[in-house]
Amino acid sequence: MPQTVAAYAAYGQAEALKPFDVERRDLREEDVEIDILYCGVCHSDIHTVNNDWGGSSYPVVPGHEIVGKVARVGSAVTRFQVGQHVAVGCMVDSCRKCNFCERDLEQHCTSGFTGTYGGKDRVDGTTTYGGYSQKVVVADKFVLSMPEGLDLAAATPLLCAGITTYSPLRRFKCGPGKKVAVVGLGGLGHMALKLAHAMGAEVTLFTRSPGKEADARRLGASNVIISSDPEAMKAAANTFDLIVDTVPYDHDLNPYIATLNCVGTISVVGYLGPLGTTLNTAPLVFQSKGVVGSLIGGIAETQEMLDFCGEKKVVSDIEMIKMEEINVAYERMMKSDVKYRFVIDISSLNKN
Amino acid sequence: MPQTVAAYAAYGQAEALKPFDVERRDLREEDVEIDILYCGVCHSDIHTVNNDWGGSSYPVVPGHEIVGKVARVGSAVTRFQVGQHVAVGCMVDSCRKCNFCERDLEQHCTSGFTGTYGGKDRVDGTTTYGGYSQKVVVADKFVLSMPEGLDLAAATPLLCAGITTYSPLRRFKCGPGKKVAVVGLGGLGHMALKLAHAMGAEVTLFTRSPGKEADARRLGASNVIISSDPEAMKAAANTFDLIVDTVPYDHDLNPYIATLNCVGTISVVGYLGPLGTTLNTAPLVFQSKGVVGSLIGGIAETQEMLDFCGEKKVVSDIEMIKMEEINVAYERMMKSDVKYRFVIDISSLNKN
Ligand SMILES: [Zn+2]
Ligand SMILES: [Zn+2]
Ligand SMILES: [Zn+2]
Ligand SMILES: [Zn+2]
Repeated sequence: MPQTVAAYAAYGQAEALKPFDVERRDLREEDVEIDILYCGVCHSDIHTVNNDWGGSSYPVVPGHEIVGKVARVGSAVTRFQVGQHVAVGCMVDSCRKCNFCERDLEQHCTSGFTGTYGGKDRVDGTTTYGGYSQKVVVADKFVLSMPEGLDLAAATPLLCAGITTYSPLRRFKCGPGKKVAVVGLGGLGHMALKLAHAMGAEVTLFTRSPGKEADARRLGASNVIISSDPEAMKAAANTFDLIVDTVPYDHDLNPYIATLNCVGTISVVGYLGPLGTTLNTAPLVFQSKGVVGSLIGGIAETQEMLDFCGEKKVVSDIEMIKMEEINVAYERMMKSDVKYRFVIDISSLNKN
Repeated sequence: MPQTVAAYAAYGQAEALKPFDVERRDLREEDVEIDILYCGVCHSDIHTVNNDWGGSSYPVVPGHEIVGKVARVGSAVTRFQVGQHVAVGCMVDSCRKCNFCERDLEQHCTSGFTGTYGGKDRVDGTTTYGGYSQKVVVADKFVLSMPEGLDLAAATPLLCAGITTYSPLRRFKCGPGKKVAVVGLGGLGHMALKLAHAMGAEVTLFTRSPGKEADARRLGASNVIISSDPEAMKAAANTFDLIVDTVPYDHDLNPYIATLNCVGTISVVGYLGPLGTTLNTAPLVFQSKGVVGSLIGGIAETQEMLDFCGEKKVVSDIEMIKMEEINVAYERMMKSDVKYRFVIDISSLNKN
């Protein structure tokens, strides 16, 4: 029997979120029903509510950083037991048979992955609703196992901000002996600092705000470079093996490329759109440098990331809110006024 | 005793090349003296004669695609014997101890590699003179061994055009099951087609010239896409694992990026300068695509490439010229009127 659970939704473009009843499907053989404990608040949630990327269909129930407890499992589920702590990230399904799905890159599924919210269920075509709700029902292949010993609320942002930065750090060989820089200190940037540090790299933060230095060092940076200081930028020429650029708005990449060492990579994960400044290919060619984008990570890599964070005790710095505070939280996020991620305590979401 | 040998040089910026006497140093312990048989003509030669990149010091004796025969060896040389066919590419020395030299990436030596021409000898500070001459003396570490069974004249362009395209093909995993495209059919492009085909990939040429189709297929392409045809470009969306972009002038990369499959790379090896069109990061991020430059290749990789070409019988399509025809050859190259590389028969260069 489908069940109705409490949730919060945007009923129209850029509207404030309000209570909404979500119907969660009856369990299919491979489904896991999860009682949601915490849900992180990602910038994508706001973009989808505002229809910034087009294609939003309302009501939208956002939330793709979900941590909870298994309530029930379908008859074919063997990997999860009732009571176990589990998580769900940005994806709840994919075709499972294309070249990318076979390579554990479900985020690049040729038929498009099924988003945790605003997606279309591959079996019955219904719209998916995210983690701003009491329960979610997800196919076991897309359910992650939470490692022991992490603060579950603080671990919630690992499911999007964590994997989004972990994946390029791994792809471009972050580790001991490597110099890694992070551009921007927001939700993504603070995770990138923590993860790169935990991987053993020497970590630098690029920021325009001198006031962020103390925090950056606490989060794992051993150096901070004020990116608006031309002398400091010049002194950093040819330094970094990898830069993870988390800045969510248009900015000139050329000064950062100059701080890459030869064969280095700047991995862009924040800004999506045309660059206002043209790229110069000369340093790319003469120094074999690259500009490479990165989108979240596959399911296997997300599990690997969670296990790594369990081992290294890496979680996010969070500010816990009640469900009813979500609209204020969105306003504060638009002003970058959060250190560094809001997480909704779903127990605050009472049955309507 | 130093010896004086015949050569051709530009005596000043953009001047026609004329006969010039080059003094080749007495052999040091690790030196190899090479009787040059053939020297390829690279666009870099023209750029250096014209001082397009700045820093040219005249007279310039160009030429960094050199194939010849060992005439003498220094007392410490064990890898080469008199009479053996050998080659020299773009580099004749580097610091040999920096992080990049240790990783066989001498082209990125932190102190700058010593160019085959227009460089400064690391021992005596004299200017290096290239392969438009009867002999060259090079430290054995930077001398390559020519494989058996290749046409030596036709193999000459492997030393720059070959390694410049081989290196990104290998770095980005060209091989069976991969779809690889090449942009531009000039000296670099025609080598990229041959090498990608020899590596077992399915190869496509992007060109603006429908007239190049037959040649492209002969060189290894199984598909040709006319890049000025929007329909053809659209039909190629999300297709290629790797694109090697050899076009030497400014052009919009975005339409090519659209034809990359997810996690694909466009490797730029031709154009050095600011892009006139801004890059859009959205497809890079959403599809984890990259734009990555590439500069020639290290010495070990150049030897690997030569051995690969020996095994697969890959050489360049060349037009042989006499030394005295070099200025006409430069004019024709400026009009892209060569299929696909001029090679100087150094036996035409008589002692002045
Ligand atoms: Zn997110
Ligand atoms: Zn798929
Ligand atoms: Zn060259
Ligand atoms: Zn070096």
